[in-house]
Amino acid sequence: MTSAKPMGPIPPEFAGQDVLTIAGRTAGDWASEAGDTPLFVYDFGIVAARIARLRAALPGEVEIHYAIKANPFAPLLEAIAPRVGGLDVASAGELAKALAVKPAAHISFAGPGKRDAELEAALRAGATINLESEGEADRALAIGLRLGIAPRVAVRVNPDFELRGSGMRMGGRASPFGIDSQRVPDLVRRLLAENADWQGFHIFGGSQSLDSAAIVEAQAETVKLAAALAQRVGRVPPLVNLGGGFGIPYFAGDAPVDVEAIGAALGEALASRPPGLDDSRFAIELGRWLVGEAGVYLTRIVDMKESGGETFYVVDGGLHHQLAATGNFGTVVRRNYPVAVAARMQARPAGTISVVGPLCTPLDRLADRAALPEAQVGDLVAVFLAGAYGATASPSAFLGHPPARELLANGRNS
Amino acid sequence: MTSAKPMGPIPPEFAGQDVLTIAGRTAGDWASEAGDTPLFVYDFGIVAARIARLRAALPGEVEIHYAIKANPFAPLLEAIAPRVGGLDVASAGELAKALAVKPAAHISFAGPGKRDAELEAALRAGATINLESEGEADRALAIGLRLGIAPRVAVRVNPDFELRGSGMRMGGRASPFGIDSQRVPDLVRRLLAENADWQGFHIFGGSQSLDSAAIVEAQAETVKLAAALAQRVGRVPPLVNLGGGFGIPYFAGDAPVDVEAIGAALGEALASRPPGLDDSRFAIELGRWLVGEAGVYLTRIVDMKESGGETFYVVDGGLHHQLAATGNFGTVVRRNYPVAVAARMQARPAGTISVVGPLCTPLDRLADRAALPEAQVGDLVAVFLAGAYGATASPSAFLGHPPARELLANGRNS
Repeated sequence: MTSAKPMGPIPPEFAGQDVLTIAGRTAGDWASEAGDTPLFVYDFGIVAARIARLRAALPGEVEIHYAIKANPFAPLLEAIAPRVGGLDVASAGELAKALAVKPAAHISFAGPGKRDAELEAALRAGATINLESEGEADRALAIGLRLGIAPRVAVRVNPDFELRGSGMRMGGRASPFGIDSQRVPDLVRRLLAENADWQGFHIFGGSQSLDSAAIVEAQAETVKLAAALAQRVGRVPPLVNLGGGFGIPYFAGDAPVDVEAIGAALGEALASRPPGLDDSRFAIELGRWLVGEAGVYLTRIVDMKESGGETFYVVDGGLHHQLAATGNFGTVVRRNYPVAVAARMQARPAGTISVVGPLCTPLDRLADRAALPEAQVGDLVAVFLAGAYGATASPSAFLGHPPARELLANGRNS
Repeated sequence: MTSAKPMGPIPPEFAGQDVLTIAGRTAGDWASEAGDTPLFVYDFGIVAARIARLRAALPGEVEIHYAIKANPFAPLLEAIAPRVGGLDVASAGELAKALAVKPAAHISFAGPGKRDAELEAALRAGATINLESEGEADRALAIGLRLGIAPRVAVRVNPDFELRGSGMRMGGRASPFGIDSQRVPDLVRRLLAENADWQGFHIFGGSQSLDSAAIVEAQAETVKLAAALAQRVGRVPPLVNLGGGFGIPYFAGDAPVDVEAIGAALGEALASRPPGLDDSRFAIELGRWLVGEAGVYLTRIVDMKESGGETFYVVDGGLHHQLAATGNFGTVVRRNYPVAVAARMQARPAGTISVVGPLCTPLDRLADRAALPEAQVGDLVAVFLAGAYGATASPSAFLGHPPARELLANGRNS
């Protein structure tokens, strides 16, 4: 028998269970409620606990923002909105979703390639546009002039440093995101001269970093950069969005970020900040860290088969719903997410088993030669860490299978 | 200036053009007809020419099948259906699309993890079920018994060889696809004993191979394997699906497969086939090769920006419509698809330029530091090789942008 490939860590809220239970109900109960498999269940209790923990760790002048691209499921968004200071969106579609649950003054719109219609929608609503280029600034100003609305804008800064250990670097080099920092003061002065309603800076060094020291360092650098820019502009930025970048542990050997250490260090950095930022508010913008561990993707075994001495559990869910778990989205080397047989999480492994989806492509593999217990057709398999970049970040139309169901647990009572 | 990264070859039908013209109309005309960008245009004339060329190259007893997962756009499917011998589907959703344009007797349904409801739909319609495991055979027989229908089935064989040079290997090792060849005769005997309507074998060694000699070799091996299995079963398989696997050139240095050489070699292999296959029909099943080069993804420049000395064309299309072109689907190393400024395909490069989409993620890059000519906001950029595994194989809901439009060119007149 070949040796098993490791899986990532099951989130602490589920790790010790024998029968997988989400917000007090078993996986089987959730599948019954959904009416069919596969399904995503998002436990809002876990999200609320993450928000509360982060709130306690962060200095008082730092808001928490939710980047809704991580998971825009409407009931989840509605539950999160009152508990965070702001929502960050990246399209007109996301803007509409955010406006349904949060006042425009607490919504900001980032992303390169905003179209005129998108800028107009944001302007009319009164959301903050995070400008990604001088050209976009020109267009926003022109549309504002036409509409008779002073555009509410922040400037996204491409910093000259990067978040070390980041799964996706967004700073420290030529980038489609933001405006190179040395050109930012000129742009802000122009915005002020044209009577734009300038809201401050958005500075984002990277995402999915598990290196707490690197996050601390990037935040300190970001505060310094914002102060330097503010000084050159000669104005206090009302809000400095420090970005986010907190990762979650997906793979074997990954460890979570130390949110309390990060919060404490940020407190020190802000306590000693230059006077130009005295009256600024700050924001940490997170998506994945808030919701990623709260989601479970449940899929049912349709067939079990043996081939070439290996065992396959063939399930009804796969890459059309959970592309990232199959290693086909933003990762170079395929590694196993945490996966379990939902009703027997503590059972002894029966061997090295691959969990494959129903798509007629070898890419559709949710677990590769993992140590999993015995199971039978009809059993539920849980794929953890499905709360962020799951349902919407997957090619749902691929091969013509139905979309996954999505359910929010604890949405009303917590 | 950094040196440009190469792009793949523009398909011959478009390569020599100055203003990109698809089926006699310019890219700009197509964008106007669509009403907005981004859009996919599929030139059915190119598909028809591929089918005709393949038809001329293949021996008469070999049918051409279209694997609709490559592109299930309904008008395209309707145009292809009368020109091919069969349609291959991989879900109940695809089955319904195929049944709208082709009699069930010419439809086969492959894929692991078919659910009972899917087997029942295929049984009722009279489509051929390509059985992927003994367990699936049991379920199909039981459902047939319940419905009083003899299930029309073929057996998918996991061959003990693989298609060399294949982008996606599906044979030669433990696999979720098909039944290991040594177990196939027992299964076929059981199917016959239970009065199933046995249709033959489906043997698929891999896909996206550009190695014509390897395809020739795999086809010869497949014929041999089918003959050996037929002999052990003691029955003539009505149809032997030899699989497909013809790749198309996506990247610099790629060369197309030699269809005429493959057809000639297959003719020889069939001419000398063992008598057990004398009365069999054969099929070559292709998706990508038939439609991939016929599609162009058109997207408009929304912004142009400079950062860190590099130039970015920011377009309104991206990985939410064309995931594979951004290197995030089934490829390990990101390489450039062929990309052009649609109205100036022969213009001199203005430098090394990256084409990035509107999604707020560094993954959204359609061309990385490619040699592209000058352009301006509003110009159309064409991404070629967008006819297969494009719109449906991309995470269309990611970040809340609208879906791409799809148009069929030459659909009625050719």
